[in-house]
Amino acid sequence: MKPNLLSEEKVIITAAITGGAHGKWSNPNLPITPEEQAKDALECYEAGATVCHIHVRGEDGLSTADLNVYNKTVRLIKEKCPIITQIGNGIGARIEYGIKVSKSGKRYGQALKMATLEERINLLNIDPQPDMFTINAGTFEFRTNMRGMETSSIFNNPIDFNKNYVNGCKKIGAGIEIEVYDTSHMANIMELVDMGVFQPNEKLHFSIVLGIKGGAPATVRNLLNMVELLPEGSTWQVVTIGKYCLRTTMIAMCMGGNIRTGLEDTVYYRKGELVKSNAQLVERMARVAKEIGREPATLDETREKLRLK
Amino acid sequence: MKPNLLSEEKVIITAAITGGAHGKWSNPNLPITPEEQAKDALECYEAGATVCHIHVRGEDGLSTADLNVYNKTVRLIKEKCPIITQIGNGIGARIEYGIKVSKSGKRYGQALKMATLEERINLLNIDPQPDMFTINAGTFEFRTNMRGMETSSIFNNPIDFNKNYVNGCKKIGAGIEIEVYDTSHMANIMELVDMGVFQPNEKLHFSIVLGIKGGAPATVRNLLNMVELLPEGSTWQVVTIGKYCLRTTMIAMCMGGNIRTGLEDTVYYRKGELVKSNAQLVERMARVAKEIGREPATLDETREKLRLK
Amino acid sequence: MKPNLLSEEKVIITAAITGGAHGKWSNPNLPITPEEQAKDALECYEAGATVCHIHVRGEDGLSTADLNVYNKTVRLIKEKCPIITQIGNGIGARIEYGIKVSKSGKRYGQALKMATLEERINLLNIDPQPDMFTINAGTFEFRTNMRGMETSSIFNNPIDFNKNYVNGCKKIGAGIEIEVYDTSHMANIMELVDMGVFQPNEKLHFSIVLGIKGGAPATVRNLLNMVELLPEGSTWQVVTIGKYCLRTTMIAMCMGGNIRTGLEDTVYYRKGELVKSNAQLVERMARVAKEIGREPATLDETREKLRLK
Amino acid sequence: MKPNLLSEEKVIITAAITGGAHGKWSNPNLPITPEEQAKDALECYEAGATVCHIHVRGEDGLSTADLNVYNKTVRLIKEKCPIITQIGNGIGARIEYGIKVSKSGKRYGQALKMATLEERINLLNIDPQPDMFTINAGTFEFRTNMRGMETSSIFNNPIDFNKNYVNGCKKIGAGIEIEVYDTSHMANIMELVDMGVFQPNEKLHFSIVLGIKGGAPATVRNLLNMVELLPEGSTWQVVTIGKYCLRTTMIAMCMGGNIRTGLEDTVYYRKGELVKSNAQLVERMARVAKEIGREPATLDETREKLRLK
Repeated sequence: MKPNLLSEEKVIITAAITGGAHGKWSNPNLPITPEEQAKDALECYEAGATVCHIHVRGEDGLSTADLNVYNKTVRLIKEKCPIITQIGNGIGARIEYGIKVSKSGKRYGQALKMATLEERINLLNIDPQPDMFTINAGTFEFRTNMRGMETSSIFNNPIDFNKNYVNGCKKIGAGIEIEVYDTSHMANIMELVDMGVFQPNEKLHFSIVLGIKGGAPATVRNLLNMVELLPEGSTWQVVTIGKYCLRTTMIAMCMGGNIRTGLEDTVYYRKGELVKSNAQLVERMARVAKEIGREPATLDETREKLRLK
Repeated sequence: MKPNLLSEEKVIITAAITGGAHGKWSNPNLPITPEEQAKDALECYEAGATVCHIHVRGEDGLSTADLNVYNKTVRLIKEKCPIITQIGNGIGARIEYGIKVSKSGKRYGQALKMATLEERINLLNIDPQPDMFTINAGTFEFRTNMRGMETSSIFNNPIDFNKNYVNGCKKIGAGIEIEVYDTSHMANIMELVDMGVFQPNEKLHFSIVLGIKGGAPATVRNLLNMVELLPEGSTWQVVTIGKYCLRTTMIAMCMGGNIRTGLEDTVYYRKGELVKSNAQLVERMARVAKEIGREPATLDETREKLRLK
Repeated sequence: MKPNLLSEEKVIITAAITGGAHGKWSNPNLPITPEEQAKDALECYEAGATVCHIHVRGEDGLSTADLNVYNKTVRLIKEKCPIITQIGNGIGARIEYGIKVSKSGKRYGQALKMATLEERINLLNIDPQPDMFTINAGTFEFRTNMRGMETSSIFNNPIDFNKNYVNGCKKIGAGIEIEVYDTSHMANIMELVDMGVFQPNEKLHFSIVLGIKGGAPATVRNLLNMVELLPEGSTWQVVTIGKYCLRTTMIAMCMGGNIRTGLEDTVYYRKGELVKSNAQLVERMARVAKEIGREPATLDETREKLRLK
Repeated sequence: MKPNLLSEEKVIITAAITGGAHGKWSNPNLPITPEEQAKDALECYEAGATVCHIHVRGEDGLSTADLNVYNKTVRLIKEKCPIITQIGNGIGARIEYGIKVSKSGKRYGQALKMATLEERINLLNIDPQPDMFTINAGTFEFRTNMRGMETSSIFNNPIDFNKNYVNGCKKIGAGIEIEVYDTSHMANIMELVDMGVFQPNEKLHFSIVLGIKGGAPATVRNLLNMVELLPEGSTWQVVTIGKYCLRTTMIAMCMGGNIRTGLEDTVYYRKGELVKSNAQLVERMARVAKEIGREPATLDETREKLRLK
């Protein structure tokens, strides 16, 4: 798909309000509890976002696969506003402590732990049912810095798992967001099309994820290459982390892509200045989108663009 | 040169206030007379522009090579404000009428006429001396629609002419802006470097011009390819025409490039809404630049970045 | 159009036997007279070439627009073998001597002179009618070194001229080869499609010309970019000059393109070793094509691929 | 690093004689036993190859991590000829049968099994010591068809493992070949450079692997992008599988890369015709390399180019 420099389509704003890695230690304004998340979702909705990308946290503030927390979060958000709920199926990473045992029997050491495939597919049972789920289009070594510790883990996304996930989503009528982290991931998706998991002319929704350690770096060439690999008629956005976030999102928006922002992606509003709230980030993107002639899509327009029922 | 998504350099805003083709028939707010141009230059300067790109017009409102008009315009601008004056050496196109003769001796027909090489090099004699001159890095068929007529002309920019122009600029201590319209033009400039006209490590200032009929189309791939062909350490901006203008300029700004805007490039502020003044365009770009953390460069900063004396 | 690394299509070999610039001073085996050209055409045909790209020379060995020479050459070739005749419509460059006059009235100086548009369109009247004509898709400064002199000339190819040329070819039922020297030239051709000069689904035949001074340099990125700009279903080959010739041709062949070779493109067989005959170059390319599983196309296959009557 | 279309450097031919997946069921001429491998290594050496890329097989013909087999193979090869021995550190995949248990206790089912990290690092203890080891620059889902079964496995290559591997190689004075399967893998290597595992100016030797399911597809754009990401001064080759193999290798060779061929990469010499021996593939590549003016590197030249002691 070629970038469209003349697109005047309404732009979908997705707010990724929490994320699956950093915590309040990175920015105290990160919403952690279901109540905080519902509040932020509402504020983002009022600021122009129509999709809320969700990871939840346990009482220790770290990522959790606990369905009770997911249920409560989705329920509270839906009570507040009709924003589209989108569950990141990677769930997130958590640091486990005491993973090694010394000769004297003392536990020490720490490691990054990712959710299991079972925990992840279990998200399809969240009640009330979310509107959308994310799939991650390939396996790679996910490396990140958590609380000063360089961590590494296999982010396991085998094609069979994704096949099952897509089929599960289709069965319950949920929409799908496809996250691709490199060229090979795009090929994996084309293989799902060849397998008939996606229909040949089915319009898909992509996030081009750049700048994660272990994935493709955040460069303009990588962004453009990935856009050009998208199947015709796709909707898409770019996801980058930290300092790259604002620039790549603006470039994507100018190329006809949609917007994703939020504290999952960046905890700084600008250099040295912490984000005050997810809504603050949504407001900036809505402001800039309007400057270039792209109004934020309404909820109905978003549902239509994303082919949600 | 790789695009720099993290650039926090101050951004130079160049206002191309008039251009060498369209007239008040396209937008009545286009400054035509030296007085109007000086007024717009001042307003742009106050809005954050530090470079004013200049073409002048005769009493008929069409492009002219008349040095008296250039002299007056540059003088009036310099009297108003210290904005850097930059003369487009193509001068501009004019429609000549009555270029054919019927059997009965009646003149009819029309054609696009470009300034001659002699008229163009004569611009080096403008008094007071402008700060910068533009060179155009290659020959091509320049096609444009003027007042509903599809016109075509050879835009003649032989390498020897450019060599002389650069030498002329260096002799009088003027800065140079290099306009490149396609891949081959970049190679022409590298040949000038090989010839010693530019020094091997001399930092150059480029405009990547896209979307002119006869030049490379305005696509993201063309933009990126051209940026990657720039010699290391170059300063640059993108120049596109009409509807592409805002988007490509924003992308360039996000990639570490500078800004050019103005009524030469676009007569519409947004779809269906004519630009009110050059300053209105400068204000929008300054606003957006600040949103992404790039403050407009001051005059002194611009002079240093462009290596002007 | 994407390169096709798996193409098993038969490959068309075009022999560009003479060219429009260098002479026997570069390589004594360059065929200059109609008789020499007919001999080389036959040898190339026997070696596997099915298209002969033709420029002719006057008695002084330099390029000429003289239709008598063209007529004789085409006639002699057709008498020898049924190879497809393709006339390069640029005709070629010649050095004119004595173009300046000293104060004492003595003529001196030299310049490159290109054929006029009138001379070029006159080629449509060659008798017997050639099978194909070349159009050059854009205007640029053509620079070359002739007999130690750096020369420069405008290679003038306005869109209106090309429109007329294509219409002329279609009228007489001749095929067309489109030479593109840069990104902008591809856009010019798309404009001819928009104008209806070419039909929207008409399959076109392209030469991607790289490495001419004034055109795009011979790089893999330029080659790939140009291939990707070709309209779907095009046939194509690459034309490069001198030392780049063999490598880019092999890359093109591996990507599903066709082959052009001949003394027009390279006078050396390998470093320091002059080409013995056009057929020697055709033989090497046929040999390598077979190694990668692409047999040379027969005459009938070529006519079908190039949509010749 | 830019492709070099004018490279006249001697070309290194690596013969990947066996591979870690398919067996004699794919091609009976695949060398499986140490004796067969030594015979093929010698034949390849005599045909112009100077590097032998090695995977070994157990008595069942499947990949094995058994050091005794590695020791014997390396020893037998070294007895036959001085070809450089290069051990693929992935070892290879094997199908395990009977991996599930039915309710009645009967074993059934099958899965792809990759060697463990422990088995892989243990290769550093092969005696006699091989000249080079391969590292694989990133983790991904390796999918392949083995004996009609679509298989999938995590090919686990964490950055810490690679760091240890490189340090291990350096400690024993062995050379390193770096296999990159996508953009992100190149970034992983740059991270090893940043960590000081490779020196900032250390010249590295890369294989750009394309066309593996789970990795980047075999396209010209992917190949070019990867070449341009190589650090300046690298040596490199391309590795593709099956039908893409010959074309991408020829393109790489034209771009200044080196050659890898062998039954690991392709079991067909051309469509429908099984390879007779590894040497047959080496001979073809040597033949084509000579056609474009690149002589096969001698053993001494190879050792120097690959910076082996």
